[in-house]
Amino acid sequence: MTPTGERRPSAILLVSCVDRPGLVAELAGFVFSNGGNILAADQHSEPDNGMFFLRLVWDTSGFALDRSATAAALGQLARRSGLTWSLRYSDERERVAVLVSRTPQCLYDLMLADQVDELGGTVTVVISNHDDLRPVAGHFGIPYHHVPSGGAMRDGAEQRMTELLAEHRVDLVVLARYMQVLSPAFVDRWLARMINIHHSFLPAFVGAQAYRQARDRGVKMIGATAHYVTNDLDQGPIVEQDVVRVSHRDTVDDLVRKGRELERTVLTRAVRYHLERRVLISGNRTVVFT
Amino acid sequence: MTPTGERRPSAILLVSCVDRPGLVAELAGFVFSNGGNILAADQHSEPDNGMFFLRLVWDTSGFALDRSATAAALGQLARRSGLTWSLRYSDERERVAVLVSRTPQCLYDLMLADQVDELGGTVTVVISNHDDLRPVAGHFGIPYHHVPSGGAMRDGAEQRMTELLAEHRVDLVVLARYMQVLSPAFVDRWLARMINIHHSFLPAFVGAQAYRQARDRGVKMIGATAHYVTNDLDQGPIVEQDVVRVSHRDTVDDLVRKGRELERTVLTRAVRYHLERRVLISGNRTVVFT
Amino acid sequence: MTPTGERRPSAILLVSCVDRPGLVAELAGFVFSNGGNILAADQHSEPDNGMFFLRLVWDTSGFALDRSATAAALGQLARRSGLTWSLRYSDERERVAVLVSRTPQCLYDLMLADQVDELGGTVTVVISNHDDLRPVAGHFGIPYHHVPSGGAMRDGAEQRMTELLAEHRVDLVVLARYMQVLSPAFVDRWLARMINIHHSFLPAFVGAQAYRQARDRGVKMIGATAHYVTNDLDQGPIVEQDVVRVSHRDTVDDLVRKGRELERTVLTRAVRYHLERRVLISGNRTVVFT
Amino acid sequence: MTPTGERRPSAILLVSCVDRPGLVAELAGFVFSNGGNILAADQHSEPDNGMFFLRLVWDTSGFALDRSATAAALGQLARRSGLTWSLRYSDERERVAVLVSRTPQCLYDLMLADQVDELGGTVTVVISNHDDLRPVAGHFGIPYHHVPSGGAMRDGAEQRMTELLAEHRVDLVVLARYMQVLSPAFVDRWLARMINIHHSFLPAFVGAQAYRQARDRGVKMIGATAHYVTNDLDQGPIVEQDVVRVSHRDTVDDLVRKGRELERTVLTRAVRYHLERRVLISGNRTVVFT
Repeated sequence: MTPTGERRPSAILLVSCVDRPGLVAELAGFVFSNGGNILAADQHSEPDNGMFFLRLVWDTSGFALDRSATAAALGQLARRSGLTWSLRYSDERERVAVLVSRTPQCLYDLMLADQVDELGGTVTVVISNHDDLRPVAGHFGIPYHHVPSGGAMRDGAEQRMTELLAEHRVDLVVLARYMQVLSPAFVDRWLARMINIHHSFLPAFVGAQAYRQARDRGVKMIGATAHYVTNDLDQGPIVEQDVVRVSHRDTVDDLVRKGRELERTVLTRAVRYHLERRVLISGNRTVVFT
Repeated sequence: MTPTGERRPSAILLVSCVDRPGLVAELAGFVFSNGGNILAADQHSEPDNGMFFLRLVWDTSGFALDRSATAAALGQLARRSGLTWSLRYSDERERVAVLVSRTPQCLYDLMLADQVDELGGTVTVVISNHDDLRPVAGHFGIPYHHVPSGGAMRDGAEQRMTELLAEHRVDLVVLARYMQVLSPAFVDRWLARMINIHHSFLPAFVGAQAYRQARDRGVKMIGATAHYVTNDLDQGPIVEQDVVRVSHRDTVDDLVRKGRELERTVLTRAVRYHLERRVLISGNRTVVFT
Repeated sequence: MTPTGERRPSAILLVSCVDRPGLVAELAGFVFSNGGNILAADQHSEPDNGMFFLRLVWDTSGFALDRSATAAALGQLARRSGLTWSLRYSDERERVAVLVSRTPQCLYDLMLADQVDELGGTVTVVISNHDDLRPVAGHFGIPYHHVPSGGAMRDGAEQRMTELLAEHRVDLVVLARYMQVLSPAFVDRWLARMINIHHSFLPAFVGAQAYRQARDRGVKMIGATAHYVTNDLDQGPIVEQDVVRVSHRDTVDDLVRKGRELERTVLTRAVRYHLERRVLISGNRTVVFT
Repeated sequence: MTPTGERRPSAILLVSCVDRPGLVAELAGFVFSNGGNILAADQHSEPDNGMFFLRLVWDTSGFALDRSATAAALGQLARRSGLTWSLRYSDERERVAVLVSRTPQCLYDLMLADQVDELGGTVTVVISNHDDLRPVAGHFGIPYHHVPSGGAMRDGAEQRMTELLAEHRVDLVVLARYMQVLSPAFVDRWLARMINIHHSFLPAFVGAQAYRQARDRGVKMIGATAHYVTNDLDQGPIVEQDVVRVSHRDTVDDLVRKGRELERTVLTRAVRYHLERRVLISGNRTVVFT
């Protein structure tokens, strides 16, 4: 994470646990009794699996506890109550790596959002299995690393990428039309911290030929899906989706063009939700507090 | 309100007040300390006017206080903390009057939602300045009253409607394409309890000729707007809006047809939001906790 | 078909054939040289399969040929040029049968569109494997036939339905949430003349449990699909689709409710497209001239 | 216009005139009798003003007439039949000037579409009243001219811009969030050849403070509108519009962010429609053949 110069940082607490009475009161009480003003509170109880999810944001300006004391107190509370929690402050920005291949649209969109400070984090490195998009990263002043991959090179490539991600202290990996399949080990390491954009309204049209399949099936809308990457191809928890209307007039090329607009919009939105800490994972689904 | 046979009713509390620290903790604490399990908590702070809004839903099955004790306790808490509040239980259903003229689509839609118990309240009477839609109300088994209005008849008509609304113990009045302008006095009596559907994306195309105006202006989408009625024509707080794409091929008649689909959907949705107590009014805007 | 009293009927010609130069000129020339004024002309060439599709509408008020002479002339032209064609006049309205089970929303929507003369055809009979919706048909003055089906009864049921469809001279069968699988023979008889509504964004979530599946997969939008029925379950040519946004808060029941709104809208729209003769079938896809 | 190396260029003919029988047949006949294969034919008759609009695209590979002979023949036909027409070939690309101030999103979007050859024309110059976006133009290799404007400078600025537009042989001017009001004389010179993006769903929220107004009015959706510039502020013919859902949670800054995404999408789409010659102007409306 990268510190920022923000004056009145807020604390953002995410909690998940087995649902039971008193959770909201307990956590809101913790904040209030220490002098914090709650700016946002969102909760959700999943009837399907009995889980409880909470996002609590408070202004820390008059808060009685400093950050380490807050962490210690929450740790105690969590042990006592069986909570899984994570806390981040708005002046700590997550560091993002963007992995790309040759298509630039999603990369531009993430960079532009970052530039006007609307991404909720900071793009710190771009990695690609091609050299094509180096000028794009350069234009935005972001380091670019060409790490060839594919076939026998994959293991070496992933090792190199792992070093780069460590070097740049990356918190979130974004696959912005990165056209290589990653190894199970690599995926596991970034579970719940790696977001991919798929060029269809999943679960329709799994795999690489989604636009071709959409054309062949004759659908009247196409979609894009941003999801966390798991080792089940295109099956990870969905963060965001959107669609656009198409017709018999649209060739596969037209679908590709219309899809590009969707892909970047959906991906940037999903990345922002993650970085603003609005997303909790519930089994193979997500809770997104928008 | 009409009691229902629901087994484990929940309490739905709406609160608005000047924002200050501790409000969530105080109210969540009140519920928890009396043994209630919070099912939903939504809050909003308006930066523009410094107001705080809360919707709190809890399961009353193990709640320590009965309804009158709860009301008394909340009354005390409200006086102490300067809250405006209202409390309703899920087994008390609001009673709805639908005012119509000649177009049936919105009426059917409200009735159908009611029939499958998805409206969140109960339609108890239909009132019209025409006799045309009597068979529709009859089909759904709802009393229908023909109250001619317009011109010199308006005062008498409003008096008769006021009697009917009292007789049927109506909580919410829905103007489902009711084509008469109501008097300021009548409007004032139903402030924040009367919802109208307007056939445009307000504030575009105020007034009766919205589709004609939309066609003349050449817009590429038309809309519908459900809003609380105030004495500024088409200026009341907006509850819900939606739009649909149109083109140069669409005549005014086509716009009317496409608009009808929108109007009913938007109106029924807005009425449900209101009846499920998801709407708070903030000046001339609404907070809708969906 | 049912004759109407329309004063200046228009002719609607649909043509499909292997693409080659001169088709538009030839057909537009035929209309013009006989004194017809073209009101709408839409054409489409499929690059994938080399087919040509045309919809031509002309005002017949000053047309030199009467209907049988027109048909003869088009027949000659078609034989010479290898065209598949069909011609209908706007004063001949297709007769529609609606097949339902227990859920009324789609039926109401089709009836309401018919009532205000916006369906493009006429509902002439309602058939159901249950007796529940008889009052709905009755309210709109349409004959209702209860034909129990399922299991061993299916053959008899389909025979009875075939008789009813013949008796009512039905042109189009609409499955408006009809929950019985039809036999291959029945389906074949109504190929390209039977439209079904499926409660998902096909090809996602094939089968009966679409909302349950959608909830389990955690999609952020749900859809509905109107398609021609073929003997491949849920695989027929898609006429129309639409979607609506959902979230983690939506239970399966919420999806059902939101889906109902979609289903009826999508189905009525698809039926209107068909009845206004805007749909041509191209392999397993459709060309829809909207 | 800039010639391209396309192998089988197509001709795109736009026609508008007073409607009468035989227009489609006559123009399709002209193409066919000279050996052209019609690729697309779209027509529209405006019932409101009795005008006829046609877009005809044909493959010129076997066409009997060369370009000057085609123009001559169409000129004759037009005089005889009272047509207004314009013809362009797909290998002649319109040259586009983009006028910007300080916000880069629309500029990036136009450039990116141009880069992958999906704009339908070529951006040849960027002009701005500020120097901020020079690096953006530079990144895409497009000349950038800083022409300060405002107040007393306006006349000189417009004269300089007129020179630059002539120098770069510009066909279309795009106002991509250009924050200066242009003089009536300048506007008149570019009538029907200058497209602006407005940050609201016009005619709602005319003027510069559209997001502030949208927030104050409490709308549930915001929009963006691309329109031809006329001397009535924000009143020119609308080419394209779109909307996005917002809520009480969205501050003016959130609306600005959501709007930016819309603005660029809507503007690029409108520019592409214009450059692909899909737009005809009908009074204060447009006919857009998509």
